[in-house]
Amino acid sequence: MYEENVKNKDFSDRLLDAIDEKQSRVVVGLDPDYDKIPSCFKNAGRFQLSEIETIYDFNRCIIDVVSPFVIAVKPQIAFYERYGISGLYVFDRTVDYAKSVGLIVIGDCKRNDIGNTAKAYADAHIGGTWLDLDAVTINPYLGSDGVYPFLDKVRDGKKGVFVLVKTSNPSSGQIQDLVLNGGCNRLYEHVGCLVDSWGSDYVGERGFSSVGAVVGATFPEHANGLRDLMPRTIFLVPGYGAQGASGKDLVSYFNAAGYGAIVSASRSIIYPHVESGSSDFDISFFVFRELVRRRVTSMIEDVNTAVRSVDADSKSQ
Amino acid sequence: MYEENVKNKDFSDRLLDAIDEKQSRVVVGLDPDYDKIPSCFKNAGRFQLSEIETIYDFNRCIIDVVSPFVIAVKPQIAFYERYGISGLYVFDRTVDYAKSVGLIVIGDCKRNDIGNTAKAYADAHIGGTWLDLDAVTINPYLGSDGVYPFLDKVRDGKKGVFVLVKTSNPSSGQIQDLVLNGGCNRLYEHVGCLVDSWGSDYVGERGFSSVGAVVGATFPEHANGLRDLMPRTIFLVPGYGAQGASGKDLVSYFNAAGYGAIVSASRSIIYPHVESGSSDFDISFFVFRELVRRRVTSMIEDVNTAVRSVDADSKSQ
Repeated sequence: MYEENVKNKDFSDRLLDAIDEKQSRVVVGLDPDYDKIPSCFKNAGRFQLSEIETIYDFNRCIIDVVSPFVIAVKPQIAFYERYGISGLYVFDRTVDYAKSVGLIVIGDCKRNDIGNTAKAYADAHIGGTWLDLDAVTINPYLGSDGVYPFLDKVRDGKKGVFVLVKTSNPSSGQIQDLVLNGGCNRLYEHVGCLVDSWGSDYVGERGFSSVGAVVGATFPEHANGLRDLMPRTIFLVPGYGAQGASGKDLVSYFNAAGYGAIVSASRSIIYPHVESGSSDFDISFFVFRELVRRRVTSMIEDVNTAVRSVDADSKSQ
Repeated sequence: MYEENVKNKDFSDRLLDAIDEKQSRVVVGLDPDYDKIPSCFKNAGRFQLSEIETIYDFNRCIIDVVSPFVIAVKPQIAFYERYGISGLYVFDRTVDYAKSVGLIVIGDCKRNDIGNTAKAYADAHIGGTWLDLDAVTINPYLGSDGVYPFLDKVRDGKKGVFVLVKTSNPSSGQIQDLVLNGGCNRLYEHVGCLVDSWGSDYVGERGFSSVGAVVGATFPEHANGLRDLMPRTIFLVPGYGAQGASGKDLVSYFNAAGYGAIVSASRSIIYPHVESGSSDFDISFFVFRELVRRRVTSMIEDVNTAVRSVDADSKSQ
């Protein structure tokens, strides 16, 4: 079924169908940090695994626990690149495993370059010469030359992209918030308009484009304007959880029908034992899985509460 | 000698020493495109090699020919990533080979992300957990959070970075040329000022910072302002050759002493048989090497002529 969906449906339609099917708008980031992995993965009478082999084992466990609940996983390639060739091999296998259990996989790669070089990245990540991800994140600093080669894959391969617009990190304003001449627009709004135009040819049956935008959860005051400016754009929203945002910050990211954003969290889901401050890494597989499951279901409920409050607001108007 | 230099000298000082030693400001981009590789690499009674093995063979040949003349090579990782794991292995081996013959190696990776993720990229590329490149290119869109982890490697490992400021591609102006509120500064100038401040703690004995900037050769009218704005910043200048720029466009990239820029070319050097329009791929190793050697020495002379005209101008003032 998954294979058939991929072939026939636009990425944006697949994403919205998954949201309806699972009643979830949550994406789990697979950002492995060996030091934070519980000790049950590292010893307990098992074969001696290398760090990166342990990470693969850990990823599979996370995927198994969250796959009934979340619509997608978002592996961050930097954490695999850090381990070189063997790390990239584990990235590759993690992507395959997540797809095999029916999850949408968004590669958080933030690649960017021009012309032929951007085409090589697009080939590598969503073109199948290496990986066959469902979507990737990309950086807009070089303008449309660096984006078009990815759009070719959106068209030909029913893939998705998420272009960085307003990121969740503290210093994002140094460049993205600059006020442009005329005083009415900030840079991230200008980039938002570019993304909207890049995506205009790739709007699916359900009204959203397969060209999405990364809009951080940590600056909710910016999201309202962007939602109006980019009505057909799906926002991939990082910054929930460990970076400080919660469901109530997300209301303005959704449209009146409750669509338009998927919310990503990594550390708060995959390291529940660390985030709770217990620093008790000596927990069993059973306890670890249960902690992850609780974290992810409670995040889904938190986000859905935000969505319901949008619905209620729009109905009361 | 190379090993000792790396340990003791700032990246910027090593670069300037190499310029003096070789009387060259030229960097060769290793952007392999299998279709453009001459047929002598592909058959002629040799072992049957895969595409990516042929590319490694090709890279070694280019490095052998250009290493007496150029100061650095700049492999573009996208063209290796396109081949997946085996491609990245060849990237790795190409970097090692270039270093082993005493060349400085600048990874054209344009990586970017925030905090811990940027640290993972910095570890991978200039931190030695995977590659041990001398320098990398990075993208500034996320602000200082995405840059600081690389600066830690500049400090601790005597490495270099080149931050994208004004790129050489046609659409670079869509974002980089935006006029900021007040009307006096364009975005790329603002980024230039940020790069200058990021680099201020990493100025070497010869007066230049190990935090450089990518400033394309295709918009020379912008370079003059940037040279004044960023007097301690080394420009890595792409866009020469196949993208249209030549030596006379480069005068404003250098300071009065003739330093401050290194000029990169790829296609015009490594595919001389294609660029000359002959489309004669059936040439011998001997002829190919000679064509490459001529292209690179003539580019060096063209750039040095531009540098001498700066010197003459400044002496005549």
